[in-house]
Amino acid sequence: MPIQHWDLNNKTHVFFVRRTELPMLDVELVFDAGSAQDGHENGLSFVTNAMIGEGAKNISSDQIAKNFENVGAQFFVFANRDMAGMTLRTLIDPKYLNAALENFSTVISMPTFPERELDRVKQQIIAAIKSQAQNPKTLAANQFYQSLYQDNFYAHNPLGNNASIVSLKQAQLIDFYKRYYVGANANLVLVGDITETQAKKIAKEIAGNFPSGNDAPQLSPADDLKKSLSVTVNYPASQSTVLIGQVGITRNNPDYFSLMVGNAIFGGLPMSSILYSEVREKRGFAYAVDSGFDPLKYRGPFMIELQTKLSTASEANALVTQLLKHFIENGPTEAQLEGAKKNLLGSFPLSLSSNDSILKAVTNIAFYHRPLNYFDTYQANVSAVTQDEVKKAFQKNIDVNKLVTVVVGQAH
Amino acid sequence: MPIQHWDLNNKTHVFFVRRTELPMLDVELVFDAGSAQDGHENGLSFVTNAMIGEGAKNISSDQIAKNFENVGAQFFVFANRDMAGMTLRTLIDPKYLNAALENFSTVISMPTFPERELDRVKQQIIAAIKSQAQNPKTLAANQFYQSLYQDNFYAHNPLGNNASIVSLKQAQLIDFYKRYYVGANANLVLVGDITETQAKKIAKEIAGNFPSGNDAPQLSPADDLKKSLSVTVNYPASQSTVLIGQVGITRNNPDYFSLMVGNAIFGGLPMSSILYSEVREKRGFAYAVDSGFDPLKYRGPFMIELQTKLSTASEANALVTQLLKHFIENGPTEAQLEGAKKNLLGSFPLSLSSNDSILKAVTNIAFYHRPLNYFDTYQANVSAVTQDEVKKAFQKNIDVNKLVTVVVGQAH
Repeated sequence: MPIQHWDLNNKTHVFFVRRTELPMLDVELVFDAGSAQDGHENGLSFVTNAMIGEGAKNISSDQIAKNFENVGAQFFVFANRDMAGMTLRTLIDPKYLNAALENFSTVISMPTFPERELDRVKQQIIAAIKSQAQNPKTLAANQFYQSLYQDNFYAHNPLGNNASIVSLKQAQLIDFYKRYYVGANANLVLVGDITETQAKKIAKEIAGNFPSGNDAPQLSPADDLKKSLSVTVNYPASQSTVLIGQVGITRNNPDYFSLMVGNAIFGGLPMSSILYSEVREKRGFAYAVDSGFDPLKYRGPFMIELQTKLSTASEANALVTQLLKHFIENGPTEAQLEGAKKNLLGSFPLSLSSNDSILKAVTNIAFYHRPLNYFDTYQANVSAVTQDEVKKAFQKNIDVNKLVTVVVGQAH
Repeated sequence: MPIQHWDLNNKTHVFFVRRTELPMLDVELVFDAGSAQDGHENGLSFVTNAMIGEGAKNISSDQIAKNFENVGAQFFVFANRDMAGMTLRTLIDPKYLNAALENFSTVISMPTFPERELDRVKQQIIAAIKSQAQNPKTLAANQFYQSLYQDNFYAHNPLGNNASIVSLKQAQLIDFYKRYYVGANANLVLVGDITETQAKKIAKEIAGNFPSGNDAPQLSPADDLKKSLSVTVNYPASQSTVLIGQVGITRNNPDYFSLMVGNAIFGGLPMSSILYSEVREKRGFAYAVDSGFDPLKYRGPFMIELQTKLSTASEANALVTQLLKHFIENGPTEAQLEGAKKNLLGSFPLSLSSNDSILKAVTNIAFYHRPLNYFDTYQANVSAVTQDEVKKAFQKNIDVNKLVTVVVGQAH
């Protein structure tokens, strides 16, 4: 899949994929301005991003929504630990396209952060934080990141906490916006039925107004834990949610493909991984179990997730650790390796079959500085992985003596 | 706004509004199959509806989603106390339209309710029920309907409860679907840039495959409460959520416009109602306060909602009741009436300015059997309301001695 790439004068990195299947253009603009850049103000990144679209230039929040609606366009914002961004889907007919792009450009480059909308957005985020704290899965995930990353910038909930959100001031949002929403810190992805010439023009219209500024400061990645750590969160439920893991890898890790294939075998493949067959099928210890790497900009987590009965929670945990140890020592069998490759190669085309999914995939390539031929070489890279490479990659990157375990459920 | 209306051979009621602003077609199909028709199986309507799109004919849930995505179409399902329905937004270019309509038609008329997807959907609904129980606003609303409607079909949460969802079986869903998803019980609304001839053809393609069947059985509407009733739900929070109200009206109530205008004056208008200025501005008893009628198919609630400080909750409640009593006795002033009319007439065009909002509005006309010229006469109907009519309508329909009050917050 050909991805075209150029930079604007203000240093915005632009990526373009021409797709003629639909008369639409999908746009994603992402900044290196996720919660990792919050500094001491938990939630600052998230609230700043959530206010994009809530007032711009002389246009109210309602009018912005109406402007998109009138031309059938869809606008969303999103933010996580690494990224803060926004997406636009619009028709390519100039009757609609021009108005949609103009509104988008105004919204992202001239936000006004009105106090009234800020109050509302803060209330919504506080409600979401509360809801996360009451859902065992999100509660467990937030606690896992906290225990795993300790004082590191990935430790805290990207949504912040009740007190930090309440105390955020408009002026802080404006400062954060000015610092991070700049060309040098921006990646713009365009996917749709436009020509390269149009893409060049549209990219400038969308992102050309940002000052070039500086890219986000480099942060100090998290260290491995010195030893294993176990945390239990009391929660009234008939089952336990368990997360086991450690600080993992970045996307630039040289063992990336060996670890991806290895993880598929160990816990990633739906209904055929080692974890699935041993923990769920054979022993019935868990309702659900899987594992995954989340390779962020800095070292993201390797994480095993289980839903277990309360009565078998500790047996399940012990079994998982034992299986992981065995996998690290012995690696996969030839049959396991071939099965995983077949599955990964078989599902790969599906993951790039729509504009939506291509947009997300190219955004990852852009943000994480992956090679532009990543998709073209993906199948060869997966196919090339050997049993020995998987074993060595797991031995190098995973240490069963330094695992964080978070259990959300009734304490024993 | 001209609304065209006809019935299909299988009795489906079709409503069509031609809108040439966007090269899109918006479709909404709704059945009289909301939770009011649950019978003894709380949540049956909601789960049945949620399974539409989760498998049809020989097409899997994933493939259904992919089929819509491939032609840039959007598909959603929704259900509430009165309605169960689904929406489709698609491009009108036949290249995309035909595939989108074919997929839509298959999805709605040949659902397979696969066990695996049913498990997942039930889990999601159980999580949503839990989340509602932990959010003071939804917790209060669910308790309010329960206290107000007692044994009536509107009493229970449309999502059901944990036990009822767990126990629902595939066969029950299939029976419910067969009984209620039929032509005689269906309203189909089409809004977009197609001709009437196309609309006739498309309506048949979408809904022509349903058997005609019978419309939903008539239910016995709720009675007024015999006397006032107060319920406090203990909830750890720094403020109280208070709902005060009673069984109100249907959309066919002869006093409909007098009550709508009166409610705008009393508690409906943002930042200028009587409740807002007296309870929030003058006394500072509440962070937020408003009132509204929710005129359902059978008598829906009249409801006043407050967010108060714990310390002023009882004073706020007393003040609200006193203001309501005063309003019923005296009606609005001339200035209040004119202000409300100006506001309602001013915001009316906005409420019909996009295909989305027209789709929703026409669906209400269709489902609630309102006259087809409802929008054309709306402004005249609002303008005609007099001070005396408002007063008499409130005197006839609201009784301050039969109010339900639900307080979610710390018990005193």
